[in-house]
Amino acid sequence: MRTRASDASTPLARKLSPACAPSFPNRYGILPIGHDETALAVGKVRYIGDNVAAVAADTESIAEEALSLIEVEYEPLPAYMDPLDAMRAESDLIHDDRAHNIEKEYHHNFGDVDRAFAECDVIREDRYVCPAVNHAAMEPQSTLAWMQHDGNMTVWSSTQVPYYLQRTLAIVLEMPESSIRVIKAAVGGGFGAKSEVCPLEPIAAVLAKKAKAPVKLTYTREEVFYAHRGRPLTIIDLKTGVTRGGKIQAVAARVIQDGGAFCGYGPVTVLYSGNLLGAMYDITNVRYDGYRVLTNKPACGAMRGHGTVNVRFAFESQLDMLAHDLLVDPAEIRLRNMLQPPCITVNDLRVTSYGYPECIERVVEASGWRERKGKLPRGRGLGIAGSHYVSGAANPTNRSDMPHSTVTIKVDRDGAIVIYTGTSEIGQGCDTMQTQIVAEELGVRFDRVKIVSADTATTPVDLGSYSSRVTFMAGNAALRAARNLKEQILAAAAKKMSLPAEELECRSERVFWKNDERIALGFDDALKAALEFHGALTAQGSYAPPKESQGGKFKGAGVGPSPAYSYAAQVAEVSVDEETGQITVHKMWAAHDCGRALNPLTVEGQVIGSVSMGLGQALQEEMTWRDGFLMNPGLLEYRSPSAIDPASPEIECFLVETIDPEGPFGAKECSEGSLAASIPAIANAVYDAVGVRINDLPLTPDKILRALKQRRA
Amino acid sequence: MRTRASDASTPLARKLSPACAPSFPNRYGILPIGHDETALAVGKVRYIGDNVAAVAADTESIAEEALSLIEVEYEPLPAYMDPLDAMRAESDLIHDDRAHNIEKEYHHNFGDVDRAFAECDVIREDRYVCPAVNHAAMEPQSTLAWMQHDGNMTVWSSTQVPYYLQRTLAIVLEMPESSIRVIKAAVGGGFGAKSEVCPLEPIAAVLAKKAKAPVKLTYTREEVFYAHRGRPLTIIDLKTGVTRGGKIQAVAARVIQDGGAFCGYGPVTVLYSGNLLGAMYDITNVRYDGYRVLTNKPACGAMRGHGTVNVRFAFESQLDMLAHDLLVDPAEIRLRNMLQPPCITVNDLRVTSYGYPECIERVVEASGWRERKGKLPRGRGLGIAGSHYVSGAANPTNRSDMPHSTVTIKVDRDGAIVIYTGTSEIGQGCDTMQTQIVAEELGVRFDRVKIVSADTATTPVDLGSYSSRVTFMAGNAALRAARNLKEQILAAAAKKMSLPAEELECRSERVFWKNDERIALGFDDALKAALEFHGALTAQGSYAPPKESQGGKFKGAGVGPSPAYSYAAQVAEVSVDEETGQITVHKMWAAHDCGRALNPLTVEGQVIGSVSMGLGQALQEEMTWRDGFLMNPGLLEYRSPSAIDPASPEIECFLVETIDPEGPFGAKECSEGSLAASIPAIANAVYDAVGVRINDLPLTPDKILRALKQRRA
Repeated sequence: MRTRASDASTPLARKLSPACAPSFPNRYGILPIGHDETALAVGKVRYIGDNVAAVAADTESIAEEALSLIEVEYEPLPAYMDPLDAMRAESDLIHDDRAHNIEKEYHHNFGDVDRAFAECDVIREDRYVCPAVNHAAMEPQSTLAWMQHDGNMTVWSSTQVPYYLQRTLAIVLEMPESSIRVIKAAVGGGFGAKSEVCPLEPIAAVLAKKAKAPVKLTYTREEVFYAHRGRPLTIIDLKTGVTRGGKIQAVAARVIQDGGAFCGYGPVTVLYSGNLLGAMYDITNVRYDGYRVLTNKPACGAMRGHGTVNVRFAFESQLDMLAHDLLVDPAEIRLRNMLQPPCITVNDLRVTSYGYPECIERVVEASGWRERKGKLPRGRGLGIAGSHYVSGAANPTNRSDMPHSTVTIKVDRDGAIVIYTGTSEIGQGCDTMQTQIVAEELGVRFDRVKIVSADTATTPVDLGSYSSRVTFMAGNAALRAARNLKEQILAAAAKKMSLPAEELECRSERVFWKNDERIALGFDDALKAALEFHGALTAQGSYAPPKESQGGKFKGAGVGPSPAYSYAAQVAEVSVDEETGQITVHKMWAAHDCGRALNPLTVEGQVIGSVSMGLGQALQEEMTWRDGFLMNPGLLEYRSPSAIDPASPEIECFLVETIDPEGPFGAKECSEGSLAASIPAIANAVYDAVGVRINDLPLTPDKILRALKQRRA
Repeated sequence: MRTRASDASTPLARKLSPACAPSFPNRYGILPIGHDETALAVGKVRYIGDNVAAVAADTESIAEEALSLIEVEYEPLPAYMDPLDAMRAESDLIHDDRAHNIEKEYHHNFGDVDRAFAECDVIREDRYVCPAVNHAAMEPQSTLAWMQHDGNMTVWSSTQVPYYLQRTLAIVLEMPESSIRVIKAAVGGGFGAKSEVCPLEPIAAVLAKKAKAPVKLTYTREEVFYAHRGRPLTIIDLKTGVTRGGKIQAVAARVIQDGGAFCGYGPVTVLYSGNLLGAMYDITNVRYDGYRVLTNKPACGAMRGHGTVNVRFAFESQLDMLAHDLLVDPAEIRLRNMLQPPCITVNDLRVTSYGYPECIERVVEASGWRERKGKLPRGRGLGIAGSHYVSGAANPTNRSDMPHSTVTIKVDRDGAIVIYTGTSEIGQGCDTMQTQIVAEELGVRFDRVKIVSADTATTPVDLGSYSSRVTFMAGNAALRAARNLKEQILAAAAKKMSLPAEELECRSERVFWKNDERIALGFDDALKAALEFHGALTAQGSYAPPKESQGGKFKGAGVGPSPAYSYAAQVAEVSVDEETGQITVHKMWAAHDCGRALNPLTVEGQVIGSVSMGLGQALQEEMTWRDGFLMNPGLLEYRSPSAIDPASPEIECFLVETIDPEGPFGAKECSEGSLAASIPAIANAVYDAVGVRINDLPLTPDKILRALKQRRA
């Protein structure tokens, strides 16, 4: 079923005829501050792709025909396609309550920035521009909503956030949350695209409620691009000052993000940019002015590396230039600005484990950096960059009344241990992760543990899969549930073995006496004893980050503060064809501090995936617009890198294990943080190869050729 | 899909050609002692209806055709259609390991029976015969088994015992229980027919596993009768001795039950008959010899009033005759033999609440017994009888490693309280019952409480819906879970209200201070506080009957001992047409001691349903056999009473509330016990009307006419 406003002729924003009064006008949004969306447009459409009408029918062709019969009267309105234009607007605002079309702005000032700049030996100021990019997950969003005769609704959806979806549908449908059951179906990739409610979800639900029948809605690829929620076009004016010795004294950034027509996660994006900008190095003076601007384009949102990727590209590129100015090795200048954890950053982020120095060491060594940097033939170069990311947000701004993660466990009569968790497996492996944690804690075979996940009716609450929170939050909840179960089992075993419970331990399918492992009970016998002793065996664990990790006096900032931060360093080796401007990436060395690799294969997969996604954004990905129409709404035109692209080199991965004190078995983030380092590493390598610096992504051959030409002139 | 051996020509038991080797030979049974069934017959078929082959196909007609192409070579064997013949057999046994075709026999001797008889003033000895009757639930058994690609199986079935079915399928399919998910579908009546595994369940599972596809199997009505598991043909030789004053001194019974070809619940049936025979009156000398005999007919099993109905018919009829001999009023003779609870019966059953005297009082008064008995015109009469039943078995013989009932509760963010229970709603109202109990205990609106039940993957273990155990066992588990949740809520509320938790109470959607109800917190606020305080809210309760209720030194007897017993008394008013022998029941007065009526409407429904089922068995229901074929395998021929039948009179119901000390809010059995009183009440009324006594059911016109003729002669 198709529901695109683009069926209408002109691309401009427009007012709808009052005749078009939707029956579900309730506004919703992923953030409490941004309830500006409705199932179907009310009053006006704000971008091409905004939904004006929906039709449910027995067949797609009937639906198409019915849609073609719908006539919508439009009254054209001025439209804003450029964020700088949008910010100048005094009237004809995209949302009446958002002056100058600014959705949200943040101004941070840590330390004494002006005085610090005055004392700097070298200062650089540059503008960096990153285009809008889309997640391009292989699976388009799809939702099946079923209105039952008993007045309850069941919704299967490709969502990363079943509990947020449940809450949103309750608002839209005016039904209690508990009468809406959301089941996460198998998800073919999310990358953030499915971490907020997608328009098709309320639309399917609304149609199902009206039709009192099951309604399924699946986006075409074109609709996926128009639904978007990807990374915003970002304009970054960055100023960094250093001492002659290469110590960073001050950083000031003005960041404008082209957010599209609705709020979505936008304020979080611009906030992450500010909170993480200066936090991975030891910088005591940081100024940040961030603007999330509304335009008449599809709404942007969360995308892998949410908020950090574009500013990190700018920062690591500029730091590279400063190193060049100071004649300091780019790896060395980074090592001279390390944090000294455990520590609190200037903006109150608590850093407890910090593997960044080791990450740099590993890639420098593996790439032969010290021997080869500067000694490669003309046209070939090496570049280095770093990045970091959160292990979930310590202050979930969007659902303060929800615990972060809760996990319950039930033991079956045949000894199977069943985990119930609200987490959303979207391919990142969180079902496996929780199963491993429980099996490890109980000392039992992996295949003894089963898992039921992401079904609001039968699994306990979890905020969802985003901001790399799952391993840390749900992992800790699963660990606590397993410990709770272990206590009950050991209590019963102790009774049976006439030994004190505290002297017992479980391992290799046995419960044994710590003082003499030969005095043991088979795990099945221990379980049987526990089932008899307790009547039935269920256990629970929930986790919320400790107060100390919530960002102190800047906690108001909401996101940014995290119970733990991951770190990454990468070296890129590229060559540039000065005739064609074509960049070839020969190899990437990627080191990632993931705290503890609970499942090394999965962690490597996540790091490699992040690097590859970063390379796509560095070299070729870009959403291009004309008159409000997207020019490349298809995988063929959008061109994410495939395995045979120049942007798909060998990626050698190094896992750095710092064993975070708060993480489950020491684990922390691994799925997003690496992405941000890849882009500047490439840009820096290109500069090393041919001496040109491109500050607007992607690094396409035409830009390279233009820059080379300018340099020769 | 049809799988009847009756497609074969001759009715006799027969040996199968070895060619017919089934791929799932594992034996199963509902009782540990009786694993004698297989998904498809192995070696020989034992009755018409025994399953020899199964075919799964895309359409029923293809399956029918395929079945018609199956040729089975049979070698005829001697068959036993009569239990007395079967008991005489020395060879050609139905099961080689069951000498004389006796599945199980029980011999109890309580007190000094012979001496007691010697001291009696009046003794009667009579033989009573009750035919086989079928539950005739409106919905035929149906099962859908789905073998998933991941090696797990999901089975939807019309079962009263999802956890037993899960265990049985695990045995048959050789899969772990936890990889088999059993979901109870909506069930259109059980009455015991679905309280053990029905042949179609393993057959559907076996086909699904072979076909790696979903397989659905639904019985035709004819197949329902051939699957049977109903009440066995029972031959009762009963001897009762009394003093001149009408005090019962001794009872001796020899009971033979025609169990059909497999064990099923049979041993429980004959055991219940013995354990409950003498337990509702104060009788100190009881002898019981019970035989569960194998014959070449469909297996009998549990049916409403399991084990008590036929012996109660005999006992209450004979007691009526004794009253007549002694010229004591039939109501009076019963009142002279009441137990004096709290007490322990001669066979160690603990009686804590006993509303039988009051039940008699109520029906005697309502029916105008004292004024009208013996004063009605010729051909019209009144009869009285009593009955009792268990509130579940204190010792579950068939699953000692399972707790009786476990209930968990989860609180949703919108304040909905969700109950997870393994109990099987089969129309008796147990979902409503548990919802009421939780709402009552928490003092919240009924509609705030939701329930998820009978799904082995998501609900905690429960033995199932049989032996009237659910309200008592699961009701207590639900109550305990609610109390556990209440504690957590009050703990958080206490913190918020700065009051000690033990001084708080919940009622009418409020948490208030017991000393001053105006100091209160809305329940939603209390929940919110508790969710924040505990991270998440889940609670658990499980229940198993106390040791003292398990039957002391006779606990080995397994069933019979129960945590509480219900009692019933009924008066029937009938008239008999001496020309036609036609009996018309004008009215039934039915009093039932249900402890506490948690839902009076439901309890009345259960009592009325029981009486009506009893009337059917008293007047017209009977499975008739010829050469191993059932002569009336259809509702038209079998003739359960419909609303317009003579056996469907006005039924006036009286609920007697004794508030049992162990039951949830004082509740105990109400769904089965009344049935057993209806049959003797009718028989006694017929005697009162026309002075003839029919000892073999049903009381059909031809028997009445024959008896009248004999009396005249």
